[in-house]
Amino acid sequence: MSEIVLYIGNKNYSSWSLRPWIAMRILDIEFREELVPFDMAAGNPAFADFSPTNKVPVLEHGTVRVWESLAIMEYLNDLFYTKRIWPHEHDRRAHARAISCEMLSGFSALRSACPMNMRREPAELAVSQAARDDVKRIVAIWKECLEQSGGPFLFGHFSAADAMFAPVVNRFDIYRLTADPTALSYMEHMKSLPAWQEWESAGRAESWVIEEDEV
Amino acid sequence: MSEIVLYIGNKNYSSWSLRPWIAMRILDIEFREELVPFDMAAGNPAFADFSPTNKVPVLEHGTVRVWESLAIMEYLNDLFYTKRIWPHEHDRRAHARAISCEMLSGFSALRSACPMNMRREPAELAVSQAARDDVKRIVAIWKECLEQSGGPFLFGHFSAADAMFAPVVNRFDIYRLTADPTALSYMEHMKSLPAWQEWESAGRAESWVIEEDEV
Repeated sequence: MSEIVLYIGNKNYSSWSLRPWIAMRILDIEFREELVPFDMAAGNPAFADFSPTNKVPVLEHGTVRVWESLAIMEYLNDLFYTKRIWPHEHDRRAHARAISCEMLSGFSALRSACPMNMRREPAELAVSQAARDDVKRIVAIWKECLEQSGGPFLFGHFSAADAMFAPVVNRFDIYRLTADPTALSYMEHMKSLPAWQEWESAGRAESWVIEEDEV
Repeated sequence: MSEIVLYIGNKNYSSWSLRPWIAMRILDIEFREELVPFDMAAGNPAFADFSPTNKVPVLEHGTVRVWESLAIMEYLNDLFYTKRIWPHEHDRRAHARAISCEMLSGFSALRSACPMNMRREPAELAVSQAARDDVKRIVAIWKECLEQSGGPFLFGHFSAADAMFAPVVNRFDIYRLTADPTALSYMEHMKSLPAWQEWESAGRAESWVIEEDEV
């Protein structure tokens, strides 16, 4: 099989890059990482060399190029069906995709006020009512999934849904956005994974800095 | 098989509702429509009775409930694989999903400045540079797909990608946002479909009115 190449941005800041990266690491899918750092909020003009949207992540596999993190998950699911990137039961798969689409299309108040940042020391942040509503909905999503599946991942085993919400684990953690015990326990589980720690260590070691209000 | 029920909002305004509705009509998938009108920008409190996000559309199928238009497409693709809701060739399927995710997550300048409206008489609208950039990217997406496939749909036959961009066909039309001949010809094809005309006629016949600046 052709080599899989994943183009990503800075590990400290690029929340979209984290999603397919951590999915492939946890599911033991071999790939070559191409990290193209950006030092400006709008990205890096060099992204245009490999990305039709000038954004990361992009996955290359032979002659196929896939952009958008959720489309990358679907591509990996087609390629490695037995890895259960989506749950195999049709009702749980539909549920996992619905909440992943919510993440892709929504929660903009949370996303703009609380950027992912692997280097930030945890400290409470005052956020708008809209961002608090986003937090409330995400906690409700997680609790419903974890209560139905029994955990430790949203659908029992690791799935694309966990990958899609991975940057939120960091945001909830560093800005102290929830005190819900089920959410906190899920976050601890995610942060304890070797793949998480590998990404976090690399992010903390990066030298590129964006001022918080630029992101 | 259990009956499929699709909860939608007003046909005149609800761009997200149009997407799964037109896909099922064109692909000849039987379903029962439940139209729950809203007369305020934030939706309708009655949406909470069937929707975990208080938004439309929602698809019900036996005990399964699916929300988010793209997750509904994936559910239908799993259920009716031979309908080719996504192209069967793995590279074209990845392409169709990537551009559908772009539509789901992006083009916010266009979406907020130029709401879908089946009743509006076509007339040029001055829009921001950000909205013009959205138009430019969408035209580029369409042209690449149509040139590769030969048309008349983005991937030759009708697919979820056409459904995801259907509301944009209306927006480009009523606000006169493009003069590109390939885009105009694709829009004419979409508007000529019986399913399109059925939706449009119903939308034009609705009595609920939202002031344009509220949407």
